[in-house]
Amino acid sequence: MAESAPAPTPAARLPRRRVSRSEAAADRLREGQTEALGQRAVELARFYAGKVETVPKVPVRSLHDFSLWYTPGIAEVSRAIHRDPDLAFELTGRWNTVAIVTDGSRVLGLGDIGPRAALPVMEGKALLFKFLGGVDAVPLPVQVGSPDAFLSAVESIAPAFGGVNLEDIASPKCFGILEELSQRLEIPVWHDDQLGTAAATVAGLVNALTVTGRDVREIRTVLLGAGAANLATARLLLALGQSPERLSLVDQHGILDAERDDVDELSIRHPWKYRLALKTNGGGRTGGLAEAVAGADVIVAASTPVPGTLRPEHVRAMAPQGIVFALANPVPEIWPEVARAAGAAVVATGRSDFPNQVNNSLVFPAVFRGVLDARARAMPDEIVLAAARELARGAERKGLSPHHILPTMEEAEVFPHVAAAVASQAVALGIARRRHSHDEFLERARQLMARPARLVRALARARLTEPMPRAPAKPRRFRA
Amino acid sequence: MAESAPAPTPAARLPRRRVSRSEAAADRLREGQTEALGQRAVELARFYAGKVETVPKVPVRSLHDFSLWYTPGIAEVSRAIHRDPDLAFELTGRWNTVAIVTDGSRVLGLGDIGPRAALPVMEGKALLFKFLGGVDAVPLPVQVGSPDAFLSAVESIAPAFGGVNLEDIASPKCFGILEELSQRLEIPVWHDDQLGTAAATVAGLVNALTVTGRDVREIRTVLLGAGAANLATARLLLALGQSPERLSLVDQHGILDAERDDVDELSIRHPWKYRLALKTNGGGRTGGLAEAVAGADVIVAASTPVPGTLRPEHVRAMAPQGIVFALANPVPEIWPEVARAAGAAVVATGRSDFPNQVNNSLVFPAVFRGVLDARARAMPDEIVLAAARELARGAERKGLSPHHILPTMEEAEVFPHVAAAVASQAVALGIARRRHSHDEFLERARQLMARPARLVRALARARLTEPMPRAPAKPRRFRA
Repeated sequence: MAESAPAPTPAARLPRRRVSRSEAAADRLREGQTEALGQRAVELARFYAGKVETVPKVPVRSLHDFSLWYTPGIAEVSRAIHRDPDLAFELTGRWNTVAIVTDGSRVLGLGDIGPRAALPVMEGKALLFKFLGGVDAVPLPVQVGSPDAFLSAVESIAPAFGGVNLEDIASPKCFGILEELSQRLEIPVWHDDQLGTAAATVAGLVNALTVTGRDVREIRTVLLGAGAANLATARLLLALGQSPERLSLVDQHGILDAERDDVDELSIRHPWKYRLALKTNGGGRTGGLAEAVAGADVIVAASTPVPGTLRPEHVRAMAPQGIVFALANPVPEIWPEVARAAGAAVVATGRSDFPNQVNNSLVFPAVFRGVLDARARAMPDEIVLAAARELARGAERKGLSPHHILPTMEEAEVFPHVAAAVASQAVALGIARRRHSHDEFLERARQLMARPARLVRALARARLTEPMPRAPAKPRRFRA
Repeated sequence: MAESAPAPTPAARLPRRRVSRSEAAADRLREGQTEALGQRAVELARFYAGKVETVPKVPVRSLHDFSLWYTPGIAEVSRAIHRDPDLAFELTGRWNTVAIVTDGSRVLGLGDIGPRAALPVMEGKALLFKFLGGVDAVPLPVQVGSPDAFLSAVESIAPAFGGVNLEDIASPKCFGILEELSQRLEIPVWHDDQLGTAAATVAGLVNALTVTGRDVREIRTVLLGAGAANLATARLLLALGQSPERLSLVDQHGILDAERDDVDELSIRHPWKYRLALKTNGGGRTGGLAEAVAGADVIVAASTPVPGTLRPEHVRAMAPQGIVFALANPVPEIWPEVARAAGAAVVATGRSDFPNQVNNSLVFPAVFRGVLDARARAMPDEIVLAAARELARGAERKGLSPHHILPTMEEAEVFPHVAAAVASQAVALGIARRRHSHDEFLERARQLMARPARLVRALARARLTEPMPRAPAKPRRFRA
């Protein structure tokens, strides 16, 4: 069982609250919609048989052009890179190409389904990378027997890529993998389940604090779930000035604390959690979620998608005007209307059908656009924070409110700003292979992020992509 | 030094023949052209900064569509593949996606320049894969420390791919790597420097034998160079009925023979060559190229690009109406006009500016089109031979002559036939996941192989690819 899926928490073990008939009906409706969506997704997967394809980005006027694109001309390009390896970022597509790597050990809510079954998810991610970020991404689910083998696999393929996006890897091994790859590789490495979620969360929190008139240095914060997302969120919050004493993490064994029985074991098995156990939870609260949330300003729940994990009494126990992030997908730990009825001032979820969606897609396409445009050598936390801050500013420019602490996916004008902030931060940190002004990076990001929608239209117009078939789609003969 | 680059051969150590002024001038002109081509290739590499890109192959009408292409809908696609892993070939792009893998240990004529410098060549190959075969190919130069690490790397990434194309790997390790990967993986594995070159060579030889009225079972054949290409050619020729006794291989130590001094060492270091040493060269000829070619019907030279490696006196020593394949690139072991003047009836080279080009591009796009359309599980020699035979038939349909023993790259109507022959062979061998009739495979291959040219035109028309810049191309600001 992954650390990031603490089911049941002590809270969840309490007798389940009585669910009203209308809520139960709404739950069933939502489940039914998800099921219908899933069946349609399978039909369409069969019809299209892949989400992305490769196309030439050079003209081919005749076969003679291949003497330039391939042998014999290409030998001189290889010679140039052999003399100066960084020229690969200028003379090939490496500058814009990212590997999406998973071992399939924690795919969506499906658990350890392995690399073959993870491929559709990585393909969808590649589509997002291109459509939102203008980034060429290669789905690369890998079959490996150990974290060491995973490291070796990613290290071996790195020469083709300008960055690595890790995805759907179980906790806690994901922490060591990210740290180690960041050390070994000369390109940025990102684990979206850690950094993407944490950056979007922190961006939303920054604005939620503004909306409720709070200072990050003063708040008491509870993180429910101690998996990939929340451990990264904790680290970023601390970097922003959150007091470690006023931060408590709650996992399946209750409040994480330096005195907890399993702390010695954690020091070996999960050093990332261990380090947080030592410095958080000032005053040594013990117990479970109920004890942790008393007087809290902020709850960030990133646990298993079990409704009722967070309950109205938890929200009522918070400080007035509480901030509640219930990020489990597809079913949040508490429905927004329930949290607000219990007194929460700002509520965020992972869903697009409620306000304040904490969505990795707000982050990763722009972050990669930025690091790729700067040809960055690494992905330090300063870059992640620069992205989070710029995302928060993007929402602020449109006006903050309890229902608007984050840009929506439709507010796409924000994304090039995030990319430019990231690229400029890389330059400031001295890890950029290319140094340009903020405005140059912004202009470049705008161009590259606008192009994919034009690609989609041009391919549809030329009937090179098939229009969406009516449901139920019959696969054409030989299609798929 | 790679085994397949035997410089100098015993023949090449002989005093160099006097080169006429006009031939020397022609050599210089060709060298100058190659140099100019190389510089233009670097300029264009900088301008375009990559040869292929990824594009959506599904419509994106609004962000809501991502609930089908990504979460939450995609989870159901993953579940389906988890239940039946072969469904990945129906529900994702795996069916049409190939990895182009190299360790950069023998790139073109450049030697061991490593994976980073190999990337431009793999990109060019990906362009060819798409343009000629309709295949989505991913350039994957890998950084590995040993053949075992290479095997692990390829094995780990296999879940994303419907096939693996190995490229530019030094001999003899390439033989063990191909054999071992073919065992370990459930998808076809191809080493183009072995199988692509051998299939094109054998196709050309089949027709050259017809043109000169010979039977493969009767010919005396000399292979000069015992690297990737010629060892595979030897194996395929033997499968076609070539008598092993009448086949001699010549490497940098002279004629390969069971009695040669280094045979015991070969049994350990190079079992593939060892096995051929035991069964070829009936009568036990000893010496070098000069001794081997006496009375030969066929010479296939696939050695280092040193002009004068094959010399007029070698051709004069052959049987009348000799067949000479001089395949070194860019400079063949003997110029065609020189070989013909010395009495050769049919001459083939690796170059597009002479008749009878032995070109891997005649083979690999169609072979992969075929195995991918059949969702083949492997790539046995029967498939390679089916491709060679169909390629030979393709030239025959247009009429055979000493100047037309192979289709040219312009005779593109041949390629879908090769693909269909390959797919049908996979069905016949029981290694196809999809079984269709030959005509169905042919129709599918025609569609998929015609589409990329339409893609190129549509992208150019929409100005989504840049027109070819005039030389010298100044890179645009931020371009590349």
